[in-house]
Amino acid sequence: MERIPILKMGEFLLVTIQVDMHDRLAMTLQEDLMTKIAANGARGVLIDISSLEMVDSFIGRMIGQTAAMSRVLDAQTVVVGMQPAVAITLVELGLALEGVRTALTVEKGMDLLRACVESRMEDVTDDGHEG
Amino acid sequence: MERIPILKMGEFLLVTIQVDMHDRLAMTLQEDLMTKIAANGARGVLIDISSLEMVDSFIGRMIGQTAAMSRVLDAQTVVVGMQPAVAITLVELGLALEGVRTALTVEKGMDLLRACVESRMEDVTDDGHEG
Repeated sequence: MERIPILKMGEFLLVTIQVDMHDRLAMTLQEDLMTKIAANGARGVLIDISSLEMVDSFIGRMIGQTAAMSRVLDAQTVVVGMQPAVAITLVELGLALEGVRTALTVEKGMDLLRACVESRMEDVTDDGHEG
Repeated sequence: MERIPILKMGEFLLVTIQVDMHDRLAMTLQEDLMTKIAANGARGVLIDISSLEMVDSFIGRMIGQTAAMSRVLDAQTVVVGMQPAVAITLVELGLALEGVRTALTVEKGMDLLRACVESRMEDVTDDGHEG
């Protein structure tokens, strides 16, 4: 069966979406991703969509859902490489990807994830008090 | 036009092959990759083929060629995530990917690349003499 590979990079997972996402492939990806987050104790997920030239409401919702699911498993999601046309379409579709962080490149996305994870860890260590 | 995205991760480039490679896509990938190696001064290329369940002589040769081209541009190539069946087929096809390093996962591949690059740099620094 066709599967989108999920690459483990340290405490983060990287998914590159290159193919058209039909329902079943998207479901498989979400399941695989959640399984991997749990198995590896991953703290963040990078979804690279730089090769997507257009997007429909299905894939928009899929990205939003995946981020929400990851959050429940204590992993932050950053979507990277979004093309301008895709951003325009998403907002026009009413899918502004609330709660999903974005970055222009994988490197910037990884920096953002690191910052998010560190600031969360500080929150826990400080227990709400300022240091 | 369909393109396979090339992700920059520090001084390395990462390519994930998920789709069937026809002639034109493979040529585009090679061109894009060489352009990116030159533009970024990349020292290594990781080619993830974990989602390839089978391989033919075309893709086998393409991988070998890409590694040879990268080497001319002073970048090492590591192929990661090869499935056992693919390894069997490649050798049966007479394409043992001589001169291409392989690793089981992206993380191990990246460690290998780092080690290669460091040992090359030491060679240059030492200028052939032992320290």
